[in-house]
Amino acid sequence: MGMPKCDANYVALSPIQFLERTANIHPERIAVVHGPRRRTWREVYDRSRLLASALLRHGLKRGDCVSVMLSNTPENLECFHGIPMSGLVINPLNTRLDAQNVDFCLRHAGCKLLIVDTEFSDIVSEALSRMRPEERPFIVDVDDDQCDPKLRGKKLGSMSYEELLARGDPSYQEAPPADEWDALALCYTSGTTADPKGVVLHHRGSYLNAMNNAVTWGMQQHPVYLWTLPMFHCCGWCFPWTITMLAGTHVCLRKVDGARVFDLISEHMVTHMCGAPIIMSALLAQPGPRTWTHSLKMMTAASAPPAPVIAGMYKLGIDITHVYGLTEVFGPVTVCEWKSEWDKLPV
Amino acid sequence: MGMPKCDANYVALSPIQFLERTANIHPERIAVVHGPRRRTWREVYDRSRLLASALLRHGLKRGDCVSVMLSNTPENLECFHGIPMSGLVINPLNTRLDAQNVDFCLRHAGCKLLIVDTEFSDIVSEALSRMRPEERPFIVDVDDDQCDPKLRGKKLGSMSYEELLARGDPSYQEAPPADEWDALALCYTSGTTADPKGVVLHHRGSYLNAMNNAVTWGMQQHPVYLWTLPMFHCCGWCFPWTITMLAGTHVCLRKVDGARVFDLISEHMVTHMCGAPIIMSALLAQPGPRTWTHSLKMMTAASAPPAPVIAGMYKLGIDITHVYGLTEVFGPVTVCEWKSEWDKLPV
Repeated sequence: MGMPKCDANYVALSPIQFLERTANIHPERIAVVHGPRRRTWREVYDRSRLLASALLRHGLKRGDCVSVMLSNTPENLECFHGIPMSGLVINPLNTRLDAQNVDFCLRHAGCKLLIVDTEFSDIVSEALSRMRPEERPFIVDVDDDQCDPKLRGKKLGSMSYEELLARGDPSYQEAPPADEWDALALCYTSGTTADPKGVVLHHRGSYLNAMNNAVTWGMQQHPVYLWTLPMFHCCGWCFPWTITMLAGTHVCLRKVDGARVFDLISEHMVTHMCGAPIIMSALLAQPGPRTWTHSLKMMTAASAPPAPVIAGMYKLGIDITHVYGLTEVFGPVTVCEWKSEWDKLPV
Repeated sequence: MGMPKCDANYVALSPIQFLERTANIHPERIAVVHGPRRRTWREVYDRSRLLASALLRHGLKRGDCVSVMLSNTPENLECFHGIPMSGLVINPLNTRLDAQNVDFCLRHAGCKLLIVDTEFSDIVSEALSRMRPEERPFIVDVDDDQCDPKLRGKKLGSMSYEELLARGDPSYQEAPPADEWDALALCYTSGTTADPKGVVLHHRGSYLNAMNNAVTWGMQQHPVYLWTLPMFHCCGWCFPWTITMLAGTHVCLRKVDGARVFDLISEHMVTHMCGAPIIMSALLAQPGPRTWTHSLKMMTAASAPPAPVIAGMYKLGIDITHVYGLTEVFGPVTVCEWKSEWDKLPV
């Protein structure tokens, strides 16, 4: 197998292209919702470019790794755009890792800068204490007012996320990578066997799977997507880019709680969400009838949900799409594609 | 700009991959309708593989050009799959060209084999008479019983399309091209200035635009697509592959006639169609109310349709998407993306 030829007008496939397009066409649409906070696509684009340029001004170089230990917040969404926008590699850390594993990932990734939510200060602090001073990344804190006050920890670094952005260049103009096979993300599978294994995702694959998500689900423009899936989980199955491509709205959620999910579905007319089977169980455990009348779709992975769960979800007006995938293949890669004749079969 | 790197598991992007997937998942679904004729996805896949292997057995080599002068028929659809499937290049000729231009295209393309519908026998015969014997391609005739008897001409060659297929290998297994930048199609712009200009389309771009069509239109699985757009027009804007990818149904149509289009929309519950503004005029000129109750979408290119045309189409239950493109960019490349706030504006 030879190297592919490259024509004179080669433009790399990259999911970072979606944000500029959406911000240009739909600048005033709501891009992200987090508690009472709202940001438009223009704002998300501007802030992502500030982040990208601030990281470069901080001294990071193309290919350097920026780790994030963040909940499903607007800052995390900006990181999925702004970090690769500047040619850096995002390393989304599983927020459930213990200090030993965080330490391992940071060192293995060669992390230069870590953006961390104060909810995870204790674990990260312990991880940093295990590292030699010269190994430790520069720390940027996200202190989120939507965090449960009981969980909100202390700041670890000398710079907040907003202070980092303030150092960015508002006129920074991102460019697609010179090569679409360049690394975009480094995701660690959470080691059930020994240490976590690092998986490098490239721009090309992330672009293609972001498109695949839309085609597989037959998504229209302007979906309202509820973040019941952790963004750290294989780059949120590429949905940070799919929803951005479709000029949808990202509805953030720090923690899956059945009542809160019910409220958000009703309030924002959520059309799509993803998650493990345990998310469905949380919804089914909610007392009382659903509080919305529209239908929505949920993509679930892992083992096939049992019939009673599917039946329960349909009763909630939630249509289930069953997929399977791996971090190594950018998230969902096989789908249980519905056949019309199955409509006639019992649950 | 360097050449892109290529990873060890490189698989070329190519629209020929869609047919195998759809035939495997939905073998018994109706793939194509032409008058009373119906073919399933299994049959279209099998026949496309027969075509691919028959062309190779005929002596054609990877990169050779096969021209088609065909109406919107099942054979034409098979050509858009079977010809590139074997590494050959499809050259869809504009069926409205005169003999001089057909002659030019066949010689300029270095056409080795021409598949021609007998409706165009006279023009092609005249074109061939202008060529030296050694320049003339091998002729394969399509004699379509759905052709208006008054237009059906004589066969020009010694082999029919069905005889060609009968020489194919039923066990032939296609493979994606070694390089996604390989040529897939050669389309001639119909020279308003001097001779037609040849545009080479590659597998990568055809794949990406086939995907784009689905994303732009927010298409669901199983669309019913009416061929009001000529397939020769920039590879039917990549819809031969988009509809195949979505396991939809191609409804063939040799000639746009308002009454016939009305009938087909009703009979097959058509969901999508494309075409120039003149197609809309033909529909609006139809007497009597629409004979269907479902809504459908039409993609139209060229200049923006005037307000009365848009209003008339909405009255017919047809939602208009306005695009613009060029053969050089695989068809539609810009879209008038609807903004919610426009809903409040007058027509």
